[in-house]
Amino acid sequence: MTMSESLELVSATKSFGGWLKRYKHHSRALDCEMIFAIYLPPQAETDKVPLLWWLSGLTCNDENFMQKAGAQRVAAELGMAIICPDTSPRGTDLPGEHDSYDFGSGASFYVNASQAPWSKHYRMYDYVTEELPSVARQHFPLNGREAISGHSMGGHGALVLALRQPGRYASVSAFAPVVNPIVSPWGQKAFTAYLGEDHGKWTQYDACELIAKGASRQPLFIDQGEADNFLDEQLMPERIEATCEKHDHPLTLRRQPGYDHSYFFIATFIEDHLRYHAEHLQRKR
Amino acid sequence: MTMSESLELVSATKSFGGWLKRYKHHSRALDCEMIFAIYLPPQAETDKVPLLWWLSGLTCNDENFMQKAGAQRVAAELGMAIICPDTSPRGTDLPGEHDSYDFGSGASFYVNASQAPWSKHYRMYDYVTEELPSVARQHFPLNGREAISGHSMGGHGALVLALRQPGRYASVSAFAPVVNPIVSPWGQKAFTAYLGEDHGKWTQYDACELIAKGASRQPLFIDQGEADNFLDEQLMPERIEATCEKHDHPLTLRRQPGYDHSYFFIATFIEDHLRYHAEHLQRKR
Repeated sequence: MTMSESLELVSATKSFGGWLKRYKHHSRALDCEMIFAIYLPPQAETDKVPLLWWLSGLTCNDENFMQKAGAQRVAAELGMAIICPDTSPRGTDLPGEHDSYDFGSGASFYVNASQAPWSKHYRMYDYVTEELPSVARQHFPLNGREAISGHSMGGHGALVLALRQPGRYASVSAFAPVVNPIVSPWGQKAFTAYLGEDHGKWTQYDACELIAKGASRQPLFIDQGEADNFLDEQLMPERIEATCEKHDHPLTLRRQPGYDHSYFFIATFIEDHLRYHAEHLQRKR
Repeated sequence: MTMSESLELVSATKSFGGWLKRYKHHSRALDCEMIFAIYLPPQAETDKVPLLWWLSGLTCNDENFMQKAGAQRVAAELGMAIICPDTSPRGTDLPGEHDSYDFGSGASFYVNASQAPWSKHYRMYDYVTEELPSVARQHFPLNGREAISGHSMGGHGALVLALRQPGRYASVSAFAPVVNPIVSPWGQKAFTAYLGEDHGKWTQYDACELIAKGASRQPLFIDQGEADNFLDEQLMPERIEATCEKHDHPLTLRRQPGYDHSYFFIATFIEDHLRYHAEHLQRKR
Protein backbone atom coordinates (compact mmCIF):
# COMPACT_ATOMS: atom_id res chain seq x y z
CA MET A 1 0.00 0.00 0.00
CA THR A 2 1.28 3.42 -0.98
CA MET A 3 1.04 6.36 1.32
CA SER A 4 -0.15 9.58 -0.21
CA GLU A 5 2.88 11.37 -1.59
CA SER A 6 3.44 14.97 -0.70
CA LEU A 7 3.91 17.37 -3.56
CA GLU A 8 5.25 20.90 -3.41
CA LEU A 9 3.80 23.25 -5.99
CA VAL A 10 6.64 25.05 -7.75
CA SER A 11 4.54 27.14 -10.13
CA ALA A 12 1.08 27.37 -11.66
CA THR A 13 0.59 29.13 -14.96
CA LYS A 14 -2.64 29.53 -16.86
CA SER A 15 -2.32 28.30 -20.42
CA PHE A 16 -5.08 27.91 -23.01
CA GLY A 17 -7.76 27.96 -20.33
CA GLY A 18 -6.07 25.18 -18.32
CA TRP A 19 -3.15 25.12 -15.94
CA LEU A 20 0.47 24.22 -16.35
CA LYS A 21 1.76 23.20 -12.96
CA ARG A 22 5.22 22.20 -11.83
CA TYR A 23 5.67 20.11 -8.72
CA LYS A 24 8.61 19.01 -6.63
CA HIS A 25 8.53 15.71 -4.75
CA HIS A 26 10.87 13.19 -3.21
CA SER A 27 11.29 10.17 -5.45
CA ARG A 28 11.88 6.90 -3.63
CA ALA A 29 12.85 5.16 -6.87
CA LEU A 30 15.52 7.74 -7.62
CA ASP A 31 16.39 8.71 -4.04
CA CYS A 32 16.38 12.43 -4.81
CA GLU A 33 14.12 15.42 -5.21
CA MET A 34 12.47 15.62 -8.62
CA ILE A 35 10.41 18.20 -10.46
CA PHE A 36 7.76 17.28 -13.01
CA ALA A 37 5.29 19.32 -15.05
CA ILE A 38 1.63 18.59 -15.71
CA TYR A 39 -0.73 20.36 -18.06
CA LEU A 40 -4.31 20.10 -16.89
CA PRO A 41 -6.78 21.06 -19.62
CA PRO A 42 -9.92 23.09 -18.80
CA GLN A 43 -11.98 19.86 -18.78
CA ALA A 44 -10.03 18.69 -15.71
CA GLU A 45 -11.89 21.28 -13.64
CA THR A 46 -15.00 19.14 -13.82
CA ASP A 47 -14.09 15.74 -15.29
CA LYS A 48 -11.47 13.06 -15.12
CA VAL A 49 -9.27 13.24 -18.19
CA PRO A 50 -6.91 10.92 -20.06
CA LEU A 51 -3.17 11.39 -19.77
CA LEU A 52 -0.34 11.64 -22.27
CA TRP A 53 3.16 10.97 -20.97
CA TRP A 54 5.84 12.98 -22.74
CA LEU A 55 9.45 11.86 -22.36
CA SER A 56 11.99 14.49 -23.39
CA GLY A 57 15.39 14.10 -24.95
CA LEU A 58 19.00 14.68 -23.97
CA THR A 59 19.73 17.91 -22.04
CA CYS A 60 16.03 18.63 -21.45
CA ASN A 61 14.07 18.83 -18.23
CA ASP A 62 10.35 19.08 -17.51
CA GLU A 63 10.12 22.53 -19.10
CA ASN A 64 11.25 22.28 -22.73
CA PHE A 65 8.20 20.53 -24.14
CA MET A 66 5.70 22.75 -22.33
CA GLN A 67 7.50 25.90 -23.48
CA LYS A 68 8.28 25.00 -27.06
CA ALA A 69 6.01 22.30 -28.50
CA GLY A 70 2.77 24.26 -28.54
CA ALA A 71 0.92 21.18 -27.27
CA GLN A 72 -1.30 22.89 -24.72
CA ARG A 73 -3.49 24.45 -27.41
CA VAL A 74 -4.51 21.05 -28.77
CA ALA A 75 -4.55 19.33 -25.37
CA ALA A 76 -6.99 22.00 -24.17
CA GLU A 77 -9.24 21.30 -27.11
CA LEU A 78 -9.04 17.54 -26.70
CA GLY A 79 -9.32 17.47 -22.92
CA MET A 80 -6.04 15.66 -22.42
CA ALA A 81 -3.60 16.04 -19.54
CA ILE A 82 0.13 15.87 -20.28
CA ILE A 83 2.87 14.99 -17.82
CA CYS A 84 6.52 15.75 -18.56
CA PRO A 85 8.90 14.02 -16.16
CA ASP A 86 12.46 15.22 -15.92
CA THR A 87 15.02 13.29 -17.99
CA SER A 88 17.23 12.00 -15.16
CA PRO A 89 17.76 12.12 -11.40
CA ARG A 90 18.80 15.56 -10.17
CA GLY A 91 20.81 16.97 -7.32
CA THR A 92 23.17 14.02 -7.21
CA ASP A 93 26.84 14.33 -7.98
CA LEU A 94 28.12 11.01 -9.24
CA PRO A 95 31.52 10.78 -10.94
CA GLY A 96 31.27 12.30 -14.42
CA GLU A 97 27.52 12.80 -14.06
CA HIS A 98 27.56 16.38 -15.30
CA ASP A 99 30.44 16.23 -17.77
CA SER A 100 28.65 15.28 -21.01
CA TYR A 101 25.42 16.34 -22.67
CA ASP A 102 24.72 12.73 -23.62
CA PHE A 103 25.43 10.96 -20.37
CA GLY A 104 24.43 11.25 -16.70
CA SER A 105 22.25 14.21 -15.76
CA GLY A 106 19.73 14.91 -18.49
CA ALA A 107 20.54 11.56 -20.10
CA SER A 108 19.00 8.69 -18.11
CA PHE A 109 17.84 6.79 -21.19
CA TYR A 110 14.90 5.72 -19.00
CA VAL A 111 16.57 2.53 -17.78
CA ASN A 112 16.98 0.94 -14.35
CA ALA A 113 20.74 1.09 -13.90
CA SER A 114 22.32 -2.06 -12.51
CA GLN A 115 25.89 -0.79 -12.23
CA ALA A 116 27.36 1.19 -9.34
CA PRO A 117 27.31 4.09 -8.76
CA TRP A 118 24.37 4.65 -11.12
CA SER A 119 22.15 1.93 -9.70
CA LYS A 120 21.44 3.92 -6.54
CA HIS A 121 19.71 6.76 -8.42
CA TYR A 122 19.34 6.03 -12.13
CA ARG A 123 16.14 3.99 -11.95
CA MET A 124 14.11 6.12 -14.32
CA TYR A 125 12.24 3.14 -15.78
CA ASP A 126 10.65 2.50 -12.40
CA TYR A 127 10.12 6.20 -11.86
CA VAL A 128 8.20 6.81 -15.07
CA THR A 129 6.31 3.51 -15.15
CA GLU A 130 5.42 3.13 -11.46
CA GLU A 131 6.25 5.86 -8.99
CA LEU A 132 5.22 8.95 -10.92
CA PRO A 133 2.03 7.33 -12.27
CA SER A 134 1.11 6.46 -8.70
CA VAL A 135 1.72 10.04 -7.60
CA ALA A 136 -0.31 11.32 -10.53
CA ARG A 137 -3.27 9.06 -9.78
CA GLN A 138 -3.37 10.29 -6.19
CA HIS A 139 -3.23 13.98 -6.96
CA PHE A 140 -4.85 14.69 -10.30
CA PRO A 141 -8.26 14.06 -11.91
CA LEU A 142 -7.15 11.33 -14.33
CA ASN A 143 -9.43 8.72 -15.82
CA GLY A 144 -6.82 5.96 -15.94
CA ARG A 145 -6.34 6.03 -19.71
CA GLU A 146 -2.72 6.66 -20.72
CA ALA A 147 -0.77 7.23 -23.92
CA ILE A 148 2.92 7.94 -24.36
CA SER A 149 5.19 9.90 -26.66
CA GLY A 150 8.63 11.44 -26.61
CA HIS A 151 11.54 12.88 -28.53
CA SER A 152 14.94 11.42 -29.37
CA MET A 153 16.15 9.71 -26.15
CA GLY A 154 12.57 10.22 -24.93
CA GLY A 155 11.22 8.71 -28.14
CA HIS A 156 13.35 5.69 -27.32
CA GLY A 157 11.85 5.74 -23.83
CA ALA A 158 8.29 5.94 -25.13
CA LEU A 159 8.77 3.04 -27.55
CA VAL A 160 10.49 0.86 -24.94
CA LEU A 161 7.92 1.54 -22.23
CA ALA A 162 5.06 0.70 -24.58
CA LEU A 163 6.69 -2.41 -26.03
CA ARG A 164 7.55 -3.75 -22.57
CA GLN A 165 4.09 -3.15 -21.11
CA PRO A 166 1.57 -4.53 -23.62
CA GLY A 167 -1.88 -3.08 -23.11
CA ARG A 168 -0.81 -0.33 -20.76
CA TYR A 169 -0.82 2.61 -23.17
CA ALA A 170 -3.70 3.21 -25.55
CA SER A 171 -1.15 4.43 -28.09
CA VAL A 172 2.50 5.28 -28.53
CA SER A 173 4.30 7.73 -30.79
CA ALA A 174 7.73 9.25 -31.09
CA PHE A 175 9.64 12.08 -32.73
CA ALA A 176 13.10 11.21 -34.02
CA PRO A 177 13.54 8.32 -31.58
CA VAL A 178 16.69 6.37 -30.87
CA VAL A 179 15.16 3.14 -32.14
CA ASN A 180 18.16 0.86 -31.77
CA PRO A 181 20.32 2.18 -28.92
CA ILE A 182 22.46 -0.94 -28.72
CA VAL A 183 24.04 0.08 -32.03
CA SER A 184 23.87 3.86 -31.49
CA PRO A 185 26.88 5.64 -29.93
CA TRP A 186 24.59 7.48 -27.52
CA GLY A 187 22.97 4.26 -26.41
CA GLN A 188 26.20 2.29 -26.21
CA LYS A 189 27.81 4.93 -24.00
CA ALA A 190 24.83 5.08 -21.65
CA PHE A 191 24.10 1.34 -21.54
CA THR A 192 27.75 0.44 -20.88
CA ALA A 193 27.81 2.66 -17.80
CA TYR A 194 24.26 2.08 -16.54
CA LEU A 195 23.87 -1.62 -17.41
CA GLY A 196 27.41 -2.98 -17.73
CA GLU A 197 28.67 -5.37 -20.36
CA ASP A 198 25.77 -7.85 -20.17
CA HIS A 199 24.11 -7.28 -23.53
CA GLY A 200 21.13 -9.32 -22.39
CA LYS A 201 20.19 -6.34 -20.23
CA TRP A 202 20.74 -3.93 -23.11
CA THR A 203 18.21 -5.65 -25.33
CA GLN A 204 15.46 -5.06 -22.77
CA TYR A 205 15.79 -1.35 -23.48
CA ASP A 206 16.03 -1.47 -27.25
CA ALA A 207 12.89 -0.95 -29.37
CA CYS A 208 14.19 -2.97 -32.33
CA GLU A 209 15.18 -5.89 -30.09
CA LEU A 210 11.82 -5.81 -28.29
CA ILE A 211 9.96 -5.85 -31.60
CA ALA A 212 12.07 -8.79 -32.76
CA LYS A 213 11.13 -10.65 -29.58
CA GLY A 214 7.50 -9.97 -30.43
CA ALA A 215 6.22 -9.23 -26.94
CA SER A 216 3.64 -6.80 -28.27
CA ARG A 217 2.09 -5.85 -31.58
CA GLN A 218 1.03 -2.34 -30.59
CA PRO A 219 1.17 0.00 -33.58
CA LEU A 220 4.01 2.54 -33.57
CA PHE A 221 3.69 6.06 -34.98
CA ILE A 222 6.98 7.85 -35.67
CA ASP A 223 7.87 11.18 -37.25
CA GLN A 224 11.45 11.66 -38.39
CA GLY A 225 12.96 14.78 -39.95
CA GLU A 226 15.10 14.09 -42.98
CA ALA A 227 17.44 17.01 -42.20
CA ASP A 228 18.08 15.72 -38.67
CA ASN A 229 21.79 15.97 -37.83
CA PHE A 230 21.63 12.74 -35.84
CA LEU A 231 19.79 10.72 -38.47
CA ASP A 232 22.50 8.42 -39.75
CA GLU A 233 24.72 8.04 -36.71
CA GLN A 234 22.25 7.86 -33.82
CA LEU A 235 18.67 7.45 -34.98
CA MET A 236 18.75 5.06 -37.93
CA PRO A 237 15.02 4.83 -38.61
CA GLU A 238 15.69 2.33 -41.39
CA ARG A 239 16.49 -0.19 -38.66
CA ILE A 240 13.05 -0.06 -37.06
CA GLU A 241 11.50 -0.02 -40.50
CA ALA A 242 13.31 -3.23 -41.43
CA THR A 243 12.61 -4.86 -38.07
CA CYS A 244 8.90 -4.08 -38.24
CA GLU A 245 8.76 -5.33 -41.81
CA LYS A 246 10.49 -8.57 -40.88
CA HIS A 247 8.36 -9.22 -37.80
CA ASP A 248 5.11 -7.90 -39.18
CA HIS A 249 4.89 -5.19 -36.55
CA PRO A 250 2.56 -2.28 -37.43
CA LEU A 251 4.56 0.90 -38.02
CA THR A 252 3.73 4.31 -39.44
CA LEU A 253 7.02 6.05 -40.13
CA ARG A 254 6.74 9.50 -41.68
CA ARG A 255 9.90 11.01 -43.08
CA GLN A 256 9.51 14.77 -43.08
CA PRO A 257 11.66 16.51 -45.70
CA GLY A 258 13.71 19.46 -44.48
CA TYR A 259 12.98 19.10 -40.76
CA ASP A 260 15.74 18.89 -38.19
CA HIS A 261 15.97 17.52 -34.64
CA SER A 262 14.65 20.63 -32.88
CA TYR A 263 11.45 21.59 -31.13
CA PHE A 264 10.47 23.48 -34.30
CA PHE A 265 10.08 20.03 -35.87
CA ILE A 266 8.10 18.76 -32.89
CA ALA A 267 5.87 21.86 -32.82
CA THR A 268 5.06 21.40 -36.51
CA PHE A 269 3.72 17.87 -36.07
CA ILE A 270 2.65 17.63 -32.42
CA GLU A 271 -0.98 18.28 -33.33
CA ASP A 272 -1.03 15.13 -35.48
CA HIS A 273 0.33 13.11 -32.58
CA LEU A 274 -2.08 14.52 -30.02
CA ARG A 275 -5.07 13.82 -32.24
CA TYR A 276 -3.76 10.30 -32.87
CA HIS A 277 -3.49 9.69 -29.14
CA ALA A 278 -6.89 11.26 -28.41
CA GLU A 279 -8.51 8.91 -30.88
CA HIS A 280 -7.00 5.87 -29.16
CA LEU A 281 -7.61 7.19 -25.66
CA GLN A 282 -11.31 7.55 -26.43
CA ARG A 283 -11.71 3.96 -27.56
CA LYS A 284 -13.06 1.30 -25.23
CA ARG A 285 -10.36 -0.93 -23.88
CA MET B 1 20.66 55.67 -51.86
CA THR B 2 21.22 52.61 -49.71
CA MET B 3 23.72 50.02 -50.70
CA SER B 4 22.64 46.43 -50.43
CA GLU B 5 23.36 45.22 -46.92
CA SER B 6 25.23 42.01 -46.44
CA LEU B 7 23.60 39.43 -44.25
CA GLU B 8 25.20 36.36 -42.73
CA LEU B 9 22.86 33.42 -42.31
CA VAL B 10 23.17 32.10 -38.74
CA SER B 11 20.64 29.28 -39.00
CA ALA B 12 17.73 28.05 -41.10
CA THR B 13 15.12 25.78 -39.55
CA LYS B 14 12.07 24.38 -41.24
CA SER B 15 8.92 25.17 -39.29
CA PHE B 16 5.31 24.56 -40.34
CA GLY B 17 6.30 24.25 -43.96
CA GLY B 18 8.14 27.58 -43.94
CA TRP B 19 11.56 28.65 -42.73
CA LEU B 20 12.75 30.29 -39.59
CA LYS B 21 16.00 32.04 -40.41
CA ARG B 22 18.38 33.96 -38.20
CA TYR B 23 20.73 36.50 -39.71
CA LYS B 24 23.66 38.52 -38.47
CA HIS B 25 24.45 41.93 -39.93
CA HIS B 26 26.28 45.12 -39.10
CA SER B 27 23.89 47.82 -37.98
CA ARG B 28 24.92 51.34 -38.85
CA ALA B 29 22.27 52.83 -36.58
CA LEU B 30 23.52 50.85 -33.59
CA ASP B 31 27.19 50.61 -34.59
CA CYS B 32 27.42 46.93 -33.70
CA GLU B 33 26.67 43.46 -35.01
CA MET B 34 23.04 42.43 -34.61
CA ILE B 35 21.10 39.21 -35.07
CA PHE B 36 17.45 39.14 -36.10
CA ALA B 37 15.02 36.33 -36.86
CA ILE B 38 12.54 36.07 -39.70
CA TYR B 39 9.83 33.51 -40.23
CA LEU B 40 9.03 33.08 -43.89
CA PRO B 41 5.75 31.21 -44.45
CA PRO B 42 5.39 28.64 -47.24
CA GLN B 43 3.67 31.27 -49.41
CA ALA B 44 6.93 33.26 -49.52
CA GLU B 45 8.39 30.59 -51.82
CA THR B 46 6.23 31.90 -54.64
CA ASP B 47 4.63 35.20 -53.56
CA LYS B 48 5.41 38.43 -51.79
CA VAL B 49 3.92 38.36 -48.32
CA PRO B 50 2.93 40.90 -45.66
CA LEU B 51 5.10 41.35 -42.60
CA LEU B 52 4.41 41.44 -38.88
CA TRP B 53 7.04 43.08 -36.69
CA TRP B 54 7.32 41.54 -33.23
CA LEU B 55 9.11 43.50 -30.54
CA SER B 56 10.08 41.44 -27.51
CA GLY B 57 10.31 42.40 -23.86
CA LEU B 58 13.01 42.78 -21.25
CA THR B 59 15.76 40.11 -21.22
CA CYS B 60 14.64 38.64 -24.55
CA ASN B 61 16.45 38.42 -27.85
CA ASP B 62 15.34 37.42 -31.33
CA GLU B 63 14.69 33.83 -30.24
CA ASN B 64 12.11 33.84 -27.44
CA PHE B 65 9.04 34.63 -29.52
CA MET B 66 9.89 32.15 -32.26
CA GLN B 67 10.51 29.36 -29.74
CA LYS B 68 7.65 29.94 -27.34
CA ALA B 69 4.72 31.81 -28.87
CA GLY B 70 3.57 29.17 -31.33
CA ALA B 71 3.03 31.87 -33.94
CA GLN B 72 4.51 30.05 -36.92
CA ARG B 73 1.56 27.68 -37.16
CA VAL B 74 -0.87 30.52 -37.77
CA ALA B 75 1.58 32.63 -39.79
CA ALA B 76 2.04 29.65 -42.12
CA GLU B 77 -1.71 29.40 -42.58
CA LEU B 78 -2.15 33.14 -43.13
CA GLY B 79 0.90 33.62 -45.34
CA MET B 80 2.48 36.21 -43.08
CA ALA B 81 6.18 36.80 -42.46
CA ILE B 82 7.31 37.75 -38.96
CA ILE B 83 10.51 39.56 -38.03
CA CYS B 84 11.82 39.58 -34.46
CA PRO B 85 14.58 42.12 -33.93
CA ASP B 86 16.78 41.83 -30.88
CA THR B 87 15.83 44.02 -27.89
CA SER B 88 18.98 46.14 -27.67
CA PRO B 89 22.42 46.66 -29.17
CA ARG B 90 24.79 43.76 -28.47
CA GLY B 91 28.49 43.25 -28.07
CA THR B 92 29.03 46.64 -26.54
CA ASP B 93 30.23 47.10 -23.00
CA LEU B 94 29.02 50.44 -21.68
CA PRO B 95 29.17 51.22 -17.94
CA GLY B 96 26.45 49.24 -16.15
CA GLU B 97 25.05 47.93 -19.43
CA HIS B 98 24.87 44.31 -18.29
CA ASP B 99 24.14 44.80 -14.58
CA SER B 100 20.31 44.87 -14.55
CA TYR B 101 17.60 42.86 -16.27
CA ASP B 102 15.62 46.07 -16.85
CA PHE B 103 18.31 48.36 -18.19
CA GLY B 104 20.98 48.34 -20.89
CA SER B 105 21.41 45.11 -22.82
CA GLY B 106 18.04 43.48 -23.44
CA ALA B 107 16.29 46.68 -22.38
CA SER B 108 16.58 49.34 -25.07
CA PHE B 109 12.94 50.51 -24.72
CA TYR B 110 13.15 51.13 -28.48
CA VAL B 111 14.23 54.77 -28.12
CA ASN B 112 16.95 56.83 -29.76
CA ALA B 113 19.17 57.62 -26.80
CA SER B 114 20.37 61.21 -26.61
CA GLN B 115 22.63 60.86 -23.58
CA ALA B 116 26.24 59.68 -23.58
CA PRO B 117 27.41 56.97 -23.52
CA TRP B 118 24.11 55.42 -24.72
CA SER B 119 23.60 57.71 -27.69
CA LYS B 120 26.40 56.04 -29.66
CA HIS B 121 24.63 52.65 -29.78
CA TYR B 122 21.16 52.79 -28.28
CA ARG B 123 19.29 54.03 -31.33
CA MET B 124 16.80 51.18 -31.53
CA TYR B 125 13.97 53.43 -32.74
CA ASP B 126 15.91 54.13 -35.92
CA TYR B 127 16.98 50.51 -36.17
CA VAL B 128 13.47 49.05 -36.04
CA THR B 129 11.72 51.77 -38.03
CA GLU B 130 14.31 52.42 -40.74
CA GLU B 131 17.43 50.32 -40.96
CA LEU B 132 16.04 46.85 -40.42
CA PRO B 133 12.98 47.47 -42.63
CA SER B 134 15.35 48.59 -45.37
CA VAL B 135 17.42 45.42 -44.95
CA ALA B 136 14.26 43.32 -44.98
CA ARG B 137 12.94 44.90 -48.17
CA GLN B 138 16.22 44.18 -49.93
CA HIS B 139 16.50 40.55 -48.94
CA PHE B 140 13.04 39.04 -48.50
CA PRO B 141 9.91 38.64 -50.63
CA LEU B 142 7.76 41.19 -48.79
CA ASN B 143 4.77 42.98 -50.31
CA GLY B 144 5.30 46.23 -48.39
CA ARG B 145 2.35 45.79 -46.03
CA GLU B 146 3.41 45.88 -42.36
CA ALA B 147 1.78 45.37 -38.98
CA ILE B 148 3.35 45.48 -35.53
CA SER B 149 2.97 43.82 -32.16
CA GLY B 150 5.02 43.15 -29.07
CA HIS B 151 5.13 42.17 -25.42
CA SER B 152 5.74 44.27 -22.31
CA MET B 153 8.63 46.61 -23.18
CA GLY B 154 8.05 45.45 -26.77
CA GLY B 155 4.34 46.17 -26.45
CA HIS B 156 5.36 49.69 -25.49
CA GLY B 157 7.58 49.74 -28.55
CA ALA B 158 4.82 48.56 -30.85
CA LEU B 159 2.33 51.14 -29.59
CA VAL B 160 4.84 53.99 -29.78
CA LEU B 161 6.05 53.08 -33.25
CA ALA B 162 2.50 52.92 -34.56
CA LEU B 163 1.33 56.11 -32.84
CA ARG B 164 4.35 58.06 -34.09
CA GLN B 165 4.05 56.88 -37.69
CA PRO B 166 0.40 57.29 -38.70
CA GLY B 167 -0.50 55.15 -41.68
CA ARG B 168 2.66 53.07 -41.65
CA TYR B 169 1.31 49.90 -40.02
CA ALA B 170 -1.94 48.34 -41.14
CA SER B 171 -2.58 47.40 -37.49
CA VAL B 172 -0.98 47.38 -34.07
CA SER B 173 -1.47 45.15 -31.06
CA ALA B 174 0.29 44.45 -27.79
CA PHE B 175 0.51 41.94 -24.96
CA ALA B 176 0.86 43.43 -21.47
CA PRO B 177 2.47 46.63 -22.78
CA VAL B 178 4.15 49.34 -20.72
CA VAL B 179 1.56 51.93 -21.77
CA ASN B 180 2.80 54.87 -19.75
CA PRO B 181 6.54 54.47 -19.23
CA ILE B 182 7.02 58.01 -17.94
CA VAL B 183 5.23 56.95 -14.74
CA SER B 184 6.50 53.34 -14.68
CA PRO B 185 9.67 52.56 -12.69
CA TRP B 186 11.05 50.55 -15.62
CA GLY B 187 10.44 53.44 -18.00
CA GLN B 188 11.71 56.11 -15.64
CA LYS B 189 14.95 54.23 -15.07
CA ALA B 190 15.54 53.72 -18.80
CA PHE B 191 14.41 57.17 -19.97
CA THR B 192 16.51 58.96 -17.34
CA ALA B 193 19.64 57.25 -18.60
CA TYR B 194 18.89 57.15 -22.32
CA LEU B 195 17.10 60.50 -22.69
CA GLY B 196 18.24 62.59 -19.72
CA GLU B 197 16.06 64.85 -17.62
CA ASP B 198 14.25 66.56 -20.49
CA HIS B 199 10.74 65.17 -20.09
CA GLY B 200 9.76 66.59 -23.44
CA LYS B 201 11.84 63.80 -24.96
CA TRP B 202 10.23 61.23 -22.69
CA THR B 203 6.71 62.01 -23.91
CA GLN B 204 7.69 61.13 -27.49
CA TYR B 205 8.12 57.55 -26.34
CA ASP B 206 5.03 57.20 -24.18
CA ALA B 207 1.85 55.71 -25.67
CA CYS B 208 -0.50 57.55 -23.31
CA GLU B 209 1.18 60.88 -24.03
CA LEU B 210 1.10 60.28 -27.78
CA ILE B 211 -2.60 59.42 -27.65
CA ALA B 212 -3.26 62.60 -25.67
CA LYS B 213 -1.45 64.59 -28.36
CA GLY B 214 -3.76 62.97 -30.88
CA ALA B 215 -1.26 62.44 -33.66
CA SER B 216 -3.05 59.33 -34.86
CA ARG B 217 -6.37 57.61 -34.30
CA GLN B 218 -5.23 54.13 -35.24
CA PRO B 219 -7.16 51.48 -33.26
CA LEU B 220 -5.17 49.71 -30.54
CA PHE B 221 -5.68 46.05 -29.61
CA ILE B 222 -4.26 45.02 -26.24
CA ASP B 223 -4.38 41.79 -24.22
CA GLN B 224 -3.50 42.00 -20.54
CA GLY B 225 -3.36 39.15 -18.05
CA GLU B 226 -5.04 39.91 -14.76
CA ALA B 227 -2.58 37.76 -12.79
CA ASP B 228 0.40 39.61 -14.26
CA ASN B 229 2.97 40.32 -11.53
CA PHE B 230 3.81 43.66 -13.13
CA LEU B 231 0.22 44.83 -13.59
CA ASP B 232 -0.08 47.50 -10.93
CA GLU B 233 3.47 48.79 -10.68
CA GLN B 234 4.68 48.79 -14.28
CA LEU B 235 1.88 48.19 -16.79
CA MET B 236 -1.16 50.10 -15.48
CA PRO B 237 -3.58 49.37 -18.32
CA GLU B 238 -6.19 51.57 -16.66
CA ARG B 239 -4.09 54.54 -17.72
CA ILE B 240 -4.36 53.84 -21.44
CA GLU B 241 -8.01 52.98 -20.97
CA ALA B 242 -8.68 56.37 -19.38
CA THR B 243 -6.55 58.21 -21.92
CA CYS B 244 -8.30 56.57 -24.87
CA GLU B 245 -11.67 57.25 -23.30
CA LYS B 246 -10.82 60.91 -22.76
CA HIS B 247 -9.40 61.45 -26.24
CA ASP B 248 -11.83 59.23 -28.10
CA HIS B 249 -9.05 56.93 -29.28
CA PRO B 250 -10.25 53.49 -30.41
CA LEU B 251 -9.03 50.80 -27.98
CA THR B 252 -9.84 47.14 -27.51
CA LEU B 253 -8.43 46.13 -24.13
CA ARG B 254 -9.06 42.54 -23.11
CA ARG B 255 -8.35 41.66 -19.50
CA GLN B 256 -7.67 37.94 -19.35
CA PRO B 257 -8.43 36.43 -15.93
CA GLY B 258 -5.73 34.21 -14.45
CA TYR B 259 -3.03 34.88 -17.03
CA ASP B 260 0.42 36.07 -16.06
CA HIS B 261 3.21 37.92 -17.89
CA SER B 262 4.78 34.85 -19.50
CA TYR B 263 4.94 33.43 -22.99
CA PHE B 264 2.25 30.96 -21.93
CA PHE B 265 -0.08 33.96 -21.91
CA ILE B 266 1.17 35.13 -25.29
CA ALA B 267 0.88 31.64 -26.79
CA THR B 268 -2.72 31.40 -25.63
CA PHE B 269 -3.82 34.54 -27.46
CA ILE B 270 -1.31 35.01 -30.29
CA GLU B 271 -3.67 33.42 -32.80
CA ASP B 272 -6.27 36.15 -32.15
CA HIS B 273 -3.63 38.80 -32.76
CA LEU B 274 -2.29 37.22 -35.93
CA ARG B 275 -5.78 36.89 -37.40
CA TYR B 276 -6.51 40.50 -36.44
CA HIS B 277 -3.37 41.66 -38.23
CA ALA B 278 -4.01 39.46 -41.25
CA GLU B 279 -7.43 40.99 -41.68
CA HIS B 280 -5.98 44.51 -41.69
CA LEU B 281 -3.01 43.56 -43.84
CA GLN B 282 -5.33 42.24 -46.51
CA ARG B 283 -7.34 45.46 -46.75
CA LYS B 284 -6.62 47.99 -49.46
CA ARG B 285 -4.74 50.98 -48.18
